[in-house]
Amino acid sequence: MRNNAGNGGRIRDMGSADGPIGIFDSGIGGLTVLREIVKLMPREDTIYLGDTARVPYGIRSSETVIKYSLENTEFLLENEIKLLVVACNTASAISLDTLKKTTGVPVIGVLIPGAEAAVRSTANKKIGVIGTEATIRSSAYQRAIVSIDPGAEVIGVACPLFVPLVEEGWTDGEIARSVAVEYLSRLKESGIDTLVLGCTHYPMLKGTIKEVVGDGITLIDSAVETAIAVREVLETGGLQKRRNDSPARKFFVTDDPERFRKVGERFLGHGIACIEKVEIPRARQALKR
Amino acid sequence: MRNNAGNGGRIRDMGSADGPIGIFDSGIGGLTVLREIVKLMPREDTIYLGDTARVPYGIRSSETVIKYSLENTEFLLENEIKLLVVACNTASAISLDTLKKTTGVPVIGVLIPGAEAAVRSTANKKIGVIGTEATIRSSAYQRAIVSIDPGAEVIGVACPLFVPLVEEGWTDGEIARSVAVEYLSRLKESGIDTLVLGCTHYPMLKGTIKEVVGDGITLIDSAVETAIAVREVLETGGLQKRRNDSPARKFFVTDDPERFRKVGERFLGHGIACIEKVEIPRARQALKR
Repeated sequence: MRNNAGNGGRIRDMGSADGPIGIFDSGIGGLTVLREIVKLMPREDTIYLGDTARVPYGIRSSETVIKYSLENTEFLLENEIKLLVVACNTASAISLDTLKKTTGVPVIGVLIPGAEAAVRSTANKKIGVIGTEATIRSSAYQRAIVSIDPGAEVIGVACPLFVPLVEEGWTDGEIARSVAVEYLSRLKESGIDTLVLGCTHYPMLKGTIKEVVGDGITLIDSAVETAIAVREVLETGGLQKRRNDSPARKFFVTDDPERFRKVGERFLGHGIACIEKVEIPRARQALKR
Repeated sequence: MRNNAGNGGRIRDMGSADGPIGIFDSGIGGLTVLREIVKLMPREDTIYLGDTARVPYGIRSSETVIKYSLENTEFLLENEIKLLVVACNTASAISLDTLKKTTGVPVIGVLIPGAEAAVRSTANKKIGVIGTEATIRSSAYQRAIVSIDPGAEVIGVACPLFVPLVEEGWTDGEIARSVAVEYLSRLKESGIDTLVLGCTHYPMLKGTIKEVVGDGITLIDSAVETAIAVREVLETGGLQKRRNDSPARKFFVTDDPERFRKVGERFLGHGIACIEKVEIPRARQALKR
């Protein structure tokens, strides 16, 4: 165990290869990212923090989102993570640079892996992005994609009903299909050949979305792309877990563990043994503020 | 004009009859209450505050909801309101007692008028309540109804998709109908004869809900009942507006006036001339904190 729990500062040393992968999201959606990480790297330990008391981040000011992101990161660093995944589109768009500067472990957001995969995938350079109102209005994906390929044309469409549909568990069936048709018809007609699922909830609707947009459009699942990026960083940095014990999965929320369990088990496709409620920001004394 | 703007305290004198009716909500839903107040009392001046920067209240702690409610009230009192309407279910359930104790003007929430109307309406004492997850989980309506009539049986059902449906403007048509059938079928079969629309967004779906539950169930619209309660208090207290000028309608939000305008005009059925963004809590100096 590293001996840095009490330093109270922002700069930490590089995590040890046997530490867990840390993931935070404003709530529950980041579990799709966890799911893909577990699929690709089943032996790795993971620790997930859902900031359910302060969700949604998309309606907060940049200053507030950065503050929350730093506090969540601080908590995960106290738990000795070796790599940080920001599994929240808003936090990825707004706080990634700050987190990279102030955190001594590699930091990966969900935005760039999805944008890069879209640019690799498209043949006609017409890319669609769907997300929450806040994500689409922020133009974060649009900017990320154009910064990689200035010739790309990006069409963003907000799909506000998708998140409540997923949280309700209505991911297939007639209602999900009708809502998807309503949101995606115009996008389909616009001639895009690639569509980024720009919200961590949306992979849960992948089947329905695929059915509605048809085979001519490639779906980019940011959760899958983020997991691939995590694997690359672990490999490059020699940070793969060495111990041979069975993987530990820890879950923390800042509010309402029971709702998190109910919805979260649907996301993961299996039970969650233990969800602990924590207070964030951490008690003042511990951080010497 | 009263000369109490700078006293910095919580206790104010009773508003003058020519002051506006003040209404706050965590966001946009309270506009259904404003709409009914304007219908019933078209000459009265109104001032609406939507705390869009801190929405939703339903996921916050009681302490936080009370703090926000006091801050919103303080702002409205600075604007010389003669009566306060808490057009937010969460704030009505949690902070009404505190507001009544600390505010020198009459305070009316949306919860009690709806609960009272339901008890008056029901013949078989089986009452349904629909609302957001937070409202239903809080059992606030259930408790209010049973405190009026201990013999009443109350069945609560959360309808999380209704708010995004309304904000999207999809209040009729096939999707709204399918979602309503999904939520309300079981409730209809349970034998209730009265159904409380326990969320300020839901009056926008009244047509669809009515169609789905049929004529055998009376819908209680909390917005209508609240407006009736406001009229009674104004009449009883001699607080009806005396001036003969055309009514002033003021709108304030704590974030994103443009979204408020877009969705809000749909709620009101007409344009909103001016929406001002304000900072709440107010700058510290003004409140002498």
